[in-house]
Amino acid sequence: MKKPLDFYFDFSSPYAYLAAMRIDELAAKYDRQVEWHPILLGVVFKETGAIPLLMIPMKGPYVIHDLERTARFHNIPYQLPNPCPIMTHIAARAMLSIRAMSGASEAVAFARAVFQAYFVEDIHIGEQENVLRIASNLGLDVGAIAAAINGPEIKEQLKNENEAAIRLGVFGAPFIIVDGEAYWGFDRFDQIEKQLQQVQ
Amino acid sequence: MKKPLDFYFDFSSPYAYLAAMRIDELAAKYDRQVEWHPILLGVVFKETGAIPLLMIPMKGPYVIHDLERTARFHNIPYQLPNPCPIMTHIAARAMLSIRAMSGASEAVAFARAVFQAYFVEDIHIGEQENVLRIASNLGLDVGAIAAAINGPEIKEQLKNENEAAIRLGVFGAPFIIVDGEAYWGFDRFDQIEKQLQQVQ
Repeated sequence: MKKPLDFYFDFSSPYAYLAAMRIDELAAKYDRQVEWHPILLGVVFKETGAIPLLMIPMKGPYVIHDLERTARFHNIPYQLPNPCPIMTHIAARAMLSIRAMSGASEAVAFARAVFQAYFVEDIHIGEQENVLRIASNLGLDVGAIAAAINGPEIKEQLKNENEAAIRLGVFGAPFIIVDGEAYWGFDRFDQIEKQLQQVQ
Repeated sequence: MKKPLDFYFDFSSPYAYLAAMRIDELAAKYDRQVEWHPILLGVVFKETGAIPLLMIPMKGPYVIHDLERTARFHNIPYQLPNPCPIMTHIAARAMLSIRAMSGASEAVAFARAVFQAYFVEDIHIGEQENVLRIASNLGLDVGAIAAAINGPEIKEQLKNENEAAIRLGVFGAPFIIVDGEAYWGFDRFDQIEKQLQQVQ
């Protein structure tokens, strides 16, 4: 049984969104699963001193354009939401609670819907109300998710997930680990594919 | 007559080295020339507050590995020199003086030789002696280059080149401008190629 790919992302990262729209397809081509790990870049960035890409002079405007071009290049629907970035702990906690209650595939479906709400429909996924509406649209138990989001258990779990990611060397998003090999960025999918081919 | 691609680089940037080994080939495929522009990332980074990639916690170790993997992926000989990064104003000034005295194609041949000396043979190209030896191996007039490197004219020219690059939005290396469209990173060569195809 081949190991799943570990996919680390923050719901507010546009490049992670692009990766999220393609990673399961890439993995499936080589008979692999993907484990989706929501993390908070705000926590991770404290380790490296990084600041959000879009806020960097010169680089920010470039990245705004590069994202549109890259999405077009890969035929992925995309628009820069406003505001971006935002706090994503509510969405991340919701995903973890869905995984605990309904399983990984429901959680991934939810994560994909959150990404699309933010980067296609410009829905502010930092707000609990909007996050719960996405869950509701998927037929999930909104009351249970709302309780879990604000409970201590899921908060602690997200904290642990962040710390575990940092220990594995995750410093940005998207970050993908394939059989111990680490890749940062949607633009490493060509190298990930080569690795998947070689171990077939 | 199609416009040349503008290629901005610092001789100390490993990703710029990888781009330098492939850019003329890519451009030639679409009947384009390349104008090579040596710049100093130390100057450019003051605009954005960036610090050298290899010095960033967590990201530095990742990048060291990513460079080896990326070079292998593209079949480009590469080893991380020690030290890296280094000051590259002498190499950059030498290139500008060669362009003024011998023309663009001699200057590009020299630039390619400097990159290879540093990233294949681990020759310290921050030292004038080594830079002049590379020029000498290419049959260039070493005395004239040595004089130019230390004269006010070439110093001023490099300063102007840096400022012009910053005005065009160049914030890192490799940075490539194709008919007004800006690309940052060796990993944008796929998108550059698509643009070159479309305007054929």
